[in-house]
Amino acid sequence: MQAVVKTERGPGGQILEVPEPTPGHSDVLVAVRASSICGTDLHIWEWNAWAQSRVKKVPMIFGHELSGEVIGVGDQVTGLKIGDHVSAETHIVDGTCYQCRTGKMHICRNVEVFGVDRDGVFAEYAVLPELNAWKNDPKLDPALAAIQEPLGNAVHSLLPEDNIEDLAGKTVLVTGCGPIGLLAIAVAKTLGAEKVYATEVNPVRIALAWKMGADGVLNPAESGATPVATLLEETDGRGVDVAVEMSGHPGGLQIALGALTPGGRVSLLGLYDSDAKIDLDARVIFPAARIYGIFGRRMFQTWFQVKGLLARPEFRSKMAEIITHRVPMRDLPKAMELLQSGKAAKVSLEPRW
Amino acid sequence: MQAVVKTERGPGGQILEVPEPTPGHSDVLVAVRASSICGTDLHIWEWNAWAQSRVKKVPMIFGHELSGEVIGVGDQVTGLKIGDHVSAETHIVDGTCYQCRTGKMHICRNVEVFGVDRDGVFAEYAVLPELNAWKNDPKLDPALAAIQEPLGNAVHSLLPEDNIEDLAGKTVLVTGCGPIGLLAIAVAKTLGAEKVYATEVNPVRIALAWKMGADGVLNPAESGATPVATLLEETDGRGVDVAVEMSGHPGGLQIALGALTPGGRVSLLGLYDSDAKIDLDARVIFPAARIYGIFGRRMFQTWFQVKGLLARPEFRSKMAEIITHRVPMRDLPKAMELLQSGKAAKVSLEPRW
Amino acid sequence: MQAVVKTERGPGGQILEVPEPTPGHSDVLVAVRASSICGTDLHIWEWNAWAQSRVKKVPMIFGHELSGEVIGVGDQVTGLKIGDHVSAETHIVDGTCYQCRTGKMHICRNVEVFGVDRDGVFAEYAVLPELNAWKNDPKLDPALAAIQEPLGNAVHSLLPEDNIEDLAGKTVLVTGCGPIGLLAIAVAKTLGAEKVYATEVNPVRIALAWKMGADGVLNPAESGATPVATLLEETDGRGVDVAVEMSGHPGGLQIALGALTPGGRVSLLGLYDSDAKIDLDARVIFPAARIYGIFGRRMFQTWFQVKGLLARPEFRSKMAEIITHRVPMRDLPKAMELLQSGKAAKVSLEPRW
Amino acid sequence: MQAVVKTERGPGGQILEVPEPTPGHSDVLVAVRASSICGTDLHIWEWNAWAQSRVKKVPMIFGHELSGEVIGVGDQVTGLKIGDHVSAETHIVDGTCYQCRTGKMHICRNVEVFGVDRDGVFAEYAVLPELNAWKNDPKLDPALAAIQEPLGNAVHSLLPEDNIEDLAGKTVLVTGCGPIGLLAIAVAKTLGAEKVYATEVNPVRIALAWKMGADGVLNPAESGATPVATLLEETDGRGVDVAVEMSGHPGGLQIALGALTPGGRVSLLGLYDSDAKIDLDARVIFPAARIYGIFGRRMFQTWFQVKGLLARPEFRSKMAEIITHRVPMRDLPKAMELLQSGKAAKVSLEPRW
Repeated sequence: MQAVVKTERGPGGQILEVPEPTPGHSDVLVAVRASSICGTDLHIWEWNAWAQSRVKKVPMIFGHELSGEVIGVGDQVTGLKIGDHVSAETHIVDGTCYQCRTGKMHICRNVEVFGVDRDGVFAEYAVLPELNAWKNDPKLDPALAAIQEPLGNAVHSLLPEDNIEDLAGKTVLVTGCGPIGLLAIAVAKTLGAEKVYATEVNPVRIALAWKMGADGVLNPAESGATPVATLLEETDGRGVDVAVEMSGHPGGLQIALGALTPGGRVSLLGLYDSDAKIDLDARVIFPAARIYGIFGRRMFQTWFQVKGLLARPEFRSKMAEIITHRVPMRDLPKAMELLQSGKAAKVSLEPRW
Repeated sequence: MQAVVKTERGPGGQILEVPEPTPGHSDVLVAVRASSICGTDLHIWEWNAWAQSRVKKVPMIFGHELSGEVIGVGDQVTGLKIGDHVSAETHIVDGTCYQCRTGKMHICRNVEVFGVDRDGVFAEYAVLPELNAWKNDPKLDPALAAIQEPLGNAVHSLLPEDNIEDLAGKTVLVTGCGPIGLLAIAVAKTLGAEKVYATEVNPVRIALAWKMGADGVLNPAESGATPVATLLEETDGRGVDVAVEMSGHPGGLQIALGALTPGGRVSLLGLYDSDAKIDLDARVIFPAARIYGIFGRRMFQTWFQVKGLLARPEFRSKMAEIITHRVPMRDLPKAMELLQSGKAAKVSLEPRW
Repeated sequence: MQAVVKTERGPGGQILEVPEPTPGHSDVLVAVRASSICGTDLHIWEWNAWAQSRVKKVPMIFGHELSGEVIGVGDQVTGLKIGDHVSAETHIVDGTCYQCRTGKMHICRNVEVFGVDRDGVFAEYAVLPELNAWKNDPKLDPALAAIQEPLGNAVHSLLPEDNIEDLAGKTVLVTGCGPIGLLAIAVAKTLGAEKVYATEVNPVRIALAWKMGADGVLNPAESGATPVATLLEETDGRGVDVAVEMSGHPGGLQIALGALTPGGRVSLLGLYDSDAKIDLDARVIFPAARIYGIFGRRMFQTWFQVKGLLARPEFRSKMAEIITHRVPMRDLPKAMELLQSGKAAKVSLEPRW
Repeated sequence: MQAVVKTERGPGGQILEVPEPTPGHSDVLVAVRASSICGTDLHIWEWNAWAQSRVKKVPMIFGHELSGEVIGVGDQVTGLKIGDHVSAETHIVDGTCYQCRTGKMHICRNVEVFGVDRDGVFAEYAVLPELNAWKNDPKLDPALAAIQEPLGNAVHSLLPEDNIEDLAGKTVLVTGCGPIGLLAIAVAKTLGAEKVYATEVNPVRIALAWKMGADGVLNPAESGATPVATLLEETDGRGVDVAVEMSGHPGGLQIALGALTPGGRVSLLGLYDSDAKIDLDARVIFPAARIYGIFGRRMFQTWFQVKGLLARPEFRSKMAEIITHRVPMRDLPKAMELLQSGKAAKVSLEPRW
């Protein structure tokens, strides 16, 4: 089969003919109908510092965002059959550690990730453990089905636990409007937030943030910009109730913490690469802020939330707007350039080799 | 001033000239701009069994749903001034009991209710403790401002605690589409529910339930109706995640419990007047159901949620549709008849005497 | 091997020689070191109405409370090895239903129970799915290891969810002091409750309730007893914060609801066999009571809580006192009589045939 | 009356004769029966950088931890009378801000603190708003009654919200064994933690940590100490479930975050004075850590928890051991020296002038 393969510990990747994978006892074999590019894939493509230390073995097939059709099942698979449409939960877990056994499978001690720790899904076929194959409505656009995985990140950032205060009539701030930030804007509005504010510097993403329903989009790079002051003013001095930090930029973190109302909460999803400096006294302790580290999506509470939201037609339409480009898989190098140029949000890959 | 007064322990009431009330140290005096009729008011008008045992003293002015303008303030009022627009939280609390001191003021041990325990608001002027006067956006339609109180019941039924699982992508059932049930349908859709189902027998209310955005409205009185079976079928056998019982009818309760997914939750707001029979083993214990008794609204978490939701234009439009009639206060007897006829949802009263 | 078998659909059971079971791919084979008798076992022994309708097939081996040593493992078992000491989580779940995939495995739609739906553990050997085998400290007394299962019921009743208000300095009521009620008294004291009250009519159990640390034990059958009034008086009129209903008796339920402070919570574990009559208005809705149906134990949050509590020596000593009798398995009929006489709390069975 | 007064913006303080305060309409006048010294008092005594920027006006009476007897009441006081014994909640709140109106009074936007923003309680008499006067059991030792305030900090750090996961069978880490850290050890054991570990460098405090019931006390300053590695080893690699950071030292923070199990939570109470550097990726985001800033105590959920715990005799005995010194108020300068020497935990002040 055709697949996008990292053949050496260096930048780039190649489209190669490789052997088709074989499902194990509890696996399904899937024909890929759509996949999409995550920031992680770009890091591995560029072979940045994170990728160099994180990726253990090559050659490896890229990619993890996926929708496909089941074309083979292992002999112990009980819940799926040939012809089912599925997406991939990309965290493969051990099922036995403390986290897995206490409702926190998404932070399994021994997690492996497709396209990072084992062969991924930028290929004609892929193998998934049955547990990781999420059954889709067959009528769902495969490109939308594939982005359920990052959409899950957005939902999980806004609702990190089963029992956490709702967004009803609340004010939400999204710092950083990459794909997950954009998704978070749309989700927060759909969950009843009164106002959703966003910060972003890239004009393409700023335009998309407005399209997602943001009530205000601030550009911290603009001359004279004082985003914290603006946000406090917009909220009559009260501050925002919930912030989701998607930028991975120290400035985004400072805005999120600075604009938070006392007792509010911040979810951190963007990665910082180096130590962050935080005035814990003024920003966390005195205002009794709550900070949630976000990793993956809850297995599978978040997937049910995502599925339910995608059943709402107006939400589905918004999601489709985030997919700014749909390109054939054979043009993956161009798709990576497109992302590097900052002119794309989500790039969907079609199985045309 | 003019006021609607229950003069005797019996049915009906009279519009009379009575002395204008005087605010105490911590009170505000309000000129009524709109009020509306609650089921409680109708019970007191009809002087049913509940009213006979519950109402302690006459003469008493009717009514509790209110919006108005502050025209006088006591000498210890600090947060409100003449000209402010306010609505009434109708539960007057002691502020010192265990419940009040642990974040549950709305179930104060010594609560008093306007128009039940003390003079109400169907009058030209009313006096409120500052604590009970909720400041409104002056541009908000007074009729909408007045129904924030029952809207708060609906929101509180759907979100009974700060930390309770969200409605994102969930399936919600509303049994009974009186005004609060109708409000609950609209709120549940606005908070991201995938599907909202309702049960109701009155055709006027059934039509309004659809208008509020219900995905299905079942009439249990129809020949051959099997609402629990239908709801299980609609949800692929899974059942509904959240039910709010607004009918006060044993049949509504059975549907709510019967259609609930294991581990789901039911809020009970409708009153039953007599003992309910429940198969606790099959309906509560084996399926690990959770039941929340609902009284009032959280003070003032719910009010902030309501205010935030009403800031969303499309939500405000839906709310306006629930006010099926706007009548002058002098026609209150006709308004009561209208409600008894089952042809109205919410009746708003305008200060024309 | 020797086993206690229900051979016919009628009262009693027999000790018979039966074939040793064989573990499947993901199962372990266990040599039973201790088991104990649950109320469920007694119901099946007596063949009461519940047992007649619930038990689907005979012949069937009795029992589910177990500790043992692993003497064989299936080829796909990864986390256990021969020589490990284990107890049994007695609910066998499908792992794929909505409940299983959203952190509520203990209320799996397709649950099966040892000794009810499939062969149980009153035998020399038993087979468990690896998922159901909970690894114990090998130094733990096997009799204590076996009662972790009902101890889990007690803990789960007191703490039904991950995020539920704590017992720190709270007042707790336990209605009904069967084994699980007794365990609940000890647990509530160990979790920091200020006061734990209990109700019970049997003198043997009343004595044990005091031993478990109850601050008051009320006998509702005593002439002139007014338990609700007494409990309100003991709490200065405030009522109890948390009640766990373990009696399965309508009177117990009325006491639990009647003595609850507004906004308090009741867990229901005892089964009622017939419809309960509840004044929902006065007992649930106006006081904003919360009711939790309790089934099983959380998999495996509760088991970790139990393990942690049993690591505390003083708690372990209390647990040992609840095991009032240790008898050889061959005397099971006498053990059943002992339980029927009301003179025992927990009866532990030793593998002497 | 006699009082300890900061007369100038500089180190130290003086015992002076000052006028007796007069209660306002809603205040009570209290005769001080015991007070105690908080770290804050020492900072103000020493006039460190924090004190210089935080304290706005002198002259000011020191102190905030208090128990006393009501000897006068304002005309609008309804819940207290002369002769009542009370302690002080030391945060004076506005009651009207967003936080106050949504169950978070303890983080009022306009909070004032006794002995910092207004005259404190190191005096013969003090005036408290009725809301801030917590009624005590008159039989409670006044010195214990006074330390309810820091005990509340400890409880609130361990249980920051109403609905947060319990400590039942969990592993808890306390970094820093000043008085609040020591209290936290005792509280965590009383709430059912399996193990409580502590870190501390001062030998007096290390000895007290063991007395409070710690299962392990690590000294990070010891040659070769690797506290994170030790804690992971002690917990079989799992890490601690809950950490409370009481040291205000960057090293304490690193230990707390480093030893935390994925998905665990850390409460931050100790103040850092300067920016903290945190590897958010490795310590917060990937392990999905939760961080809670802690300020004050919940008003008044925490006070009820504290009261209930102090009703347990064995807990009361432990608390008494934390009060290492009881000195007459006239010896306050010596008491300050004692604290500076590191040889005391809690110093109680008796009203002997």
